Amino acid sequence: MFQVRTDLAVEARELYKEKQKQEVPGVEVEKEEKEHYTVTRVRVLDSDGENNIGKAKGTYITIEAPALKKADQDLKDEMSKALAKELSDLTKLNNATKTLIVGLGNWNVTPDALGPKVVDRVFVTRHFFKAYNKTDDESMSQVSAIAPGVMGLTGIETSEIIKGIVEKTNPNLVIAVDALASRKMDRVSTTIQISDTGINPGSGVGNKRQALNKDYLGVPVIAIGIPMVVDAATMVNDTMELIINDMKEQSKTGSNFYSMLQEMENEDKHTLIKEVLNPYLGNVMVTPKEIDKLINDLSIVIANGLNISLHSGIDLKDVNKYLN
Amino acid sequence: MFQVRTDLAVEARELYKEKQKQEVPGVEVEKEEKEHYTVTRVRVLDSDGENNIGKAKGTYITIEAPALKKADQDLKDEMSKALAKELSDLTKLNNATKTLIVGLGNWNVTPDALGPKVVDRVFVTRHFFKAYNKTDDESMSQVSAIAPGVMGLTGIETSEIIKGIVEKTNPNLVIAVDALASRKMDRVSTTIQISDTGINPGSGVGNKRQALNKDYLGVPVIAIGIPMVVDAATMVNDTMELIINDMKEQSKTGSNFYSMLQEMENEDKHTLIKEVLNPYLGNVMVTPKEIDKLINDLSIVIANGLNISLHSGIDLKDVNKYLN
Amino acid sequence: MFQVRTDLAVEARELYKEKQKQEVPGVEVEKEEKEHYTVTRVRVLDSDGENNIGKAKGTYITIEAPALKKADQDLKDEMSKALAKELSDLTKLNNATKTLIVGLGNWNVTPDALGPKVVDRVFVTRHFFKAYNKTDDESMSQVSAIAPGVMGLTGIETSEIIKGIVEKTNPNLVIAVDALASRKMDRVSTTIQISDTGINPGSGVGNKRQALNKDYLGVPVIAIGIPMVVDAATMVNDTMELIINDMKEQSKTGSNFYSMLQEMENEDKHTLIKEVLNPYLGNVMVTPKEIDKLINDLSIVIANGLNISLHSGIDLKDVNKYLN
Amino acid sequence: MFQVRTDLAVEARELYKEKQKQEVPGVEVEKEEKEHYTVTRVRVLDSDGENNIGKAKGTYITIEAPALKKADQDLKDEMSKALAKELSDLTKLNNATKTLIVGLGNWNVTPDALGPKVVDRVFVTRHFFKAYNKTDDESMSQVSAIAPGVMGLTGIETSEIIKGIVEKTNPNLVIAVDALASRKMDRVSTTIQISDTGINPGSGVGNKRQALNKDYLGVPVIAIGIPMVVDAATMVNDTMELIINDMKEQSKTGSNFYSMLQEMENEDKHTLIKEVLNPYLGNVMVTPKEIDKLINDLSIVIANGLNISLHSGIDLKDVNKYLN
Repeated sequence: MFQVRTDLAVEARELYKEKQKQEVPGVEVEKEEKEHYTVTRVRVLDSDGENNIGKAKGTYITIEAPALKKADQDLKDEMSKALAKELSDLTKLNNATKTLIVGLGNWNVTPDALGPKVVDRVFVTRHFFKAYNKTDDESMSQVSAIAPGVMGLTGIETSEIIKGIVEKTNPNLVIAVDALASRKMDRVSTTIQISDTGINPGSGVGNKRQALNKDYLGVPVIAIGIPMVVDAATMVNDTMELIINDMKEQSKTGSNFYSMLQEMENEDKHTLIKEVLNPYLGNVMVTPKEIDKLINDLSIVIANGLNISLHSGIDLKDVNKYLN
Repeated sequence: MFQVRTDLAVEARELYKEKQKQEVPGVEVEKEEKEHYTVTRVRVLDSDGENNIGKAKGTYITIEAPALKKADQDLKDEMSKALAKELSDLTKLNNATKTLIVGLGNWNVTPDALGPKVVDRVFVTRHFFKAYNKTDDESMSQVSAIAPGVMGLTGIETSEIIKGIVEKTNPNLVIAVDALASRKMDRVSTTIQISDTGINPGSGVGNKRQALNKDYLGVPVIAIGIPMVVDAATMVNDTMELIINDMKEQSKTGSNFYSMLQEMENEDKHTLIKEVLNPYLGNVMVTPKEIDKLINDLSIVIANGLNISLHSGIDLKDVNKYLN
Repeated sequence: MFQVRTDLAVEARELYKEKQKQEVPGVEVEKEEKEHYTVTRVRVLDSDGENNIGKAKGTYITIEAPALKKADQDLKDEMSKALAKELSDLTKLNNATKTLIVGLGNWNVTPDALGPKVVDRVFVTRHFFKAYNKTDDESMSQVSAIAPGVMGLTGIETSEIIKGIVEKTNPNLVIAVDALASRKMDRVSTTIQISDTGINPGSGVGNKRQALNKDYLGVPVIAIGIPMVVDAATMVNDTMELIINDMKEQSKTGSNFYSMLQEMENEDKHTLIKEVLNPYLGNVMVTPKEIDKLINDLSIVIANGLNISLHSGIDLKDVNKYLN
Repeated sequence: MFQVRTDLAVEARELYKEKQKQEVPGVEVEKEEKEHYTVTRVRVLDSDGENNIGKAKGTYITIEAPALKKADQDLKDEMSKALAKELSDLTKLNNATKTLIVGLGNWNVTPDALGPKVVDRVFVTRHFFKAYNKTDDESMSQVSAIAPGVMGLTGIETSEIIKGIVEKTNPNLVIAVDALASRKMDRVSTTIQISDTGINPGSGVGNKRQALNKDYLGVPVIAIGIPMVVDAATMVNDTMELIINDMKEQSKTGSNFYSMLQEMENEDKHTLIKEVLNPYLGNVMVTPKEIDKLINDLSIVIANGLNISLHSGIDLKDVNKYLN
């Protein structure tokens, strides 16, 4: 079947609803509207929920701010704070928390460099704790960070590298930051997803990548991501579906026509798109033109959110003052 | 009407043939097959030809090498030589030629940085001629080069900047290098277009950008470009058309259906795509994932082609030896 | 004679005073102490002054803030404002001023990239004035900007390029931004020099570079610079001089010794340093280790200073909000 | 005492000889002159040798090619081959060798980015072996690679990170690549040092960094480095010493003078230089102006050397063909 590629739980749920015309069994959704953004909390409750939307059991929080693409400093700050709040709610952070921040992705591919850029911008403090033989501090917690690079660059599964470092450094929380793929262009660079499930490669897709989650690492793993690309085949497919829906509405008379289109949809369409797009698949990405700048801006939004949530003595004013 | 965006004359001609089912009046085409690449020479002969394919009168040479995307050094060298040959045929280069190479595009946007990167890699020699008060040399010609940046960065039309520099430095040839947009993904990063028409912004599209051509600058302008992106709307449109064609073939029986699709094609389709894609238009680009590396590699291919064609005393071996 | 390399008028004057033990004839100096920085205004009044310190007639303003190297956002903002104030005092800016900002230097050499980076960060507005056929505006003035690259990259004297653009675009003010060389490490990245003399290559040094000044361009030229490197030979020479002075003080008894050192100073020392440093000269630079970050930070300080002084409707709060 | 900073064993030995006017006890030296380069093998034999030159027991091979700074492709290839040969001699490489290449250094500081850039350019193969469940191959060996970043970026000792990865991935050889500091400018970017001792932070200097060697990791560690900077204080000190020597020669008559200088040398000089240079120390680096380009070129030389020595089926022609 045609595989719509999305890393967002809100979109996976949307897709289910579009096809099945009902809420997803095993999944709970809660929405909170703010002035400049919306927070959606998708909770996958059981294996029914897991199978229905293809996402591991756990909580997926989405902060959506359509204006984030062209944000001024105030909105960026608001998003950093919203991220910090959701993060603190999801995992009980305090000064005794020892966090390892992992920046996933390939720094040589612009839209994939979000994680490494966040790592470059977080306050790391673990070496100070070690140098002064401290175990806690009033104003900051122990933070370390690494951007290991992708398997094509290292020859090693990223999860293995992280497990090795976790065993040597004993953090009690891992936060993994990654660029995501979305189904819809208007979510690209406007949406932050936070989840307590870690990173779980799609089951059954053939690639047997090792998960980066609590089961494997032995400590809780929070995943934070922002969609930076749309899959090309997904974009074409979605566009066509909208067009076909529109055609159905407009041609109420042609019952024959309607059924042929239905037929087409089920049998031929996916094959056709795949054939037609074949030279693209796996090689092409659809990104905003200003991607180089967006990656920079959004890595600061996430890094600042992490900095204020991990270090109680630091507020956003300090961060902006000293760190720009 | 739906505007297919392409900077390639071979594609503009292809489109005309698809729609009109005939060769383009006022346009002459010649094809030459080589082992690793194909050279197509499209000659727009008169204003009929200009109107039919929307390209200014002149010669457009396309060198297509499907393997260029994953080329080894031998193929890259072959492309540099092919470019040098076509360039020499198109404009009678000799050691008295004084060339200004202009790298168009925005160095802050990865797929648009081709021109500036070529400028970084060409041998400039004009200052040596000036320093030694020479007007010619046995092994090299006078070359200068500039990457002025785009209007959004400078506040000045690029053509005005170049005209100012041409008036001060008096070259007798301008070569403008630019990243192009193609209609088809498989031409991206595999095709070099060389034309003797300069750069002529599309007529009637509303933007009144000043052309960079002989009329304006007073000296011949050669344009060299490689497609690095595909327009998102174009990609969706083309994919749908292929699918519809396929449907027509397969459902010979449904004559009613066929005519409805025809109808749709003419009335609704373009409007629909535009509506559906609206959030994307003007903001989205479709590029190969390895775009950062491709831009680097291809800027070397073009720079080497320029270096060996402009300086008689330099061959590719030297260039690769000293300049990588 | 040993040539101490400095682009700062305050240092050229300092050197004269060290050697001649008197104030410089033909040069007037005024100092203003602020809480976080010092402003020094050196006025070269006549050709006597020009010969004595090797700087063209005109005003050289130096803003020195030792803490700028590790500045928080407040100090950076204060420096942007101080720069804006001095700039406005030096040249009567108003909304009818049409400014061309020129970023000098080579973007491929980290400490030389200050000018190009400033150009990337200034608000350019000229194209809006042109598009709407306006000649003035309540909140902004016409600004264009270009970073032409150095002669080794273009084959053209930078001054020629700028003159061509000035003739085509008719600004009534040119502001040239450049990285400077200082004599002392502690001025590197802590000092901004603003002068109304433009850029005047040292007379008699053998290189006959064209000046970038009012005489050549026909419009006033303001030069803004920050020292980013120290010349290696200068650093060694200055260190030795300090050591010899120290020796003199300590060995009052050895009158013989004293005179030999004097002798050495005048005859052999300069030759020796040059010989010893020969492999370095012209090829080596001394820079702070954090140069990559400093260049970024300081280009923002200058760009912000330009943005608020050129556009009356913009204040620093806006700039920091929208532009970081 | 004044600490001359050098990472090169040949220089440490040179210094000993200059001061003590004799060969270093416990150290063996062997020199081999080639047409374009010299190979020096310094063997530290025992703890006497270790104390005398401050380098751990083991072999330090230096390949010096003065022309490497402006090398054509042939010389670069020759250096890659020389490196490959010395590497193969030092450690018995074969197709069963499982190598982890570690790129040390900070990618945000230009002259410190050598290691990370080498890692970006080596062929990694370990993931292919894993994917196909192979343990050996006729034409290649298992290679993985990582550039972990410096402690200031990660909060973790680099050695700890590497140990974690070694324990998870079980290589039987670690090769650590790093930018070095030299005492003399003419060794910068012209010299490659290869040693079988790993990386051993200077004893007694106060920083208690963990070594990256066989003792700690449990597998042999080869260190490869190229000097990219000279320490500023070292440069001044060495220059002065040369000058003083020159003065001694020239003023044979002044015996009084001679002894005063001797005195100065032993008592005051080092203190003076340190005082004078104080604002610089620890903060300043002396590098070639073309450092950005040199780092690129030399990372390719090392990466190619590693590629041909680790993979028996690959020769330099392939590497240059496919990997530029």
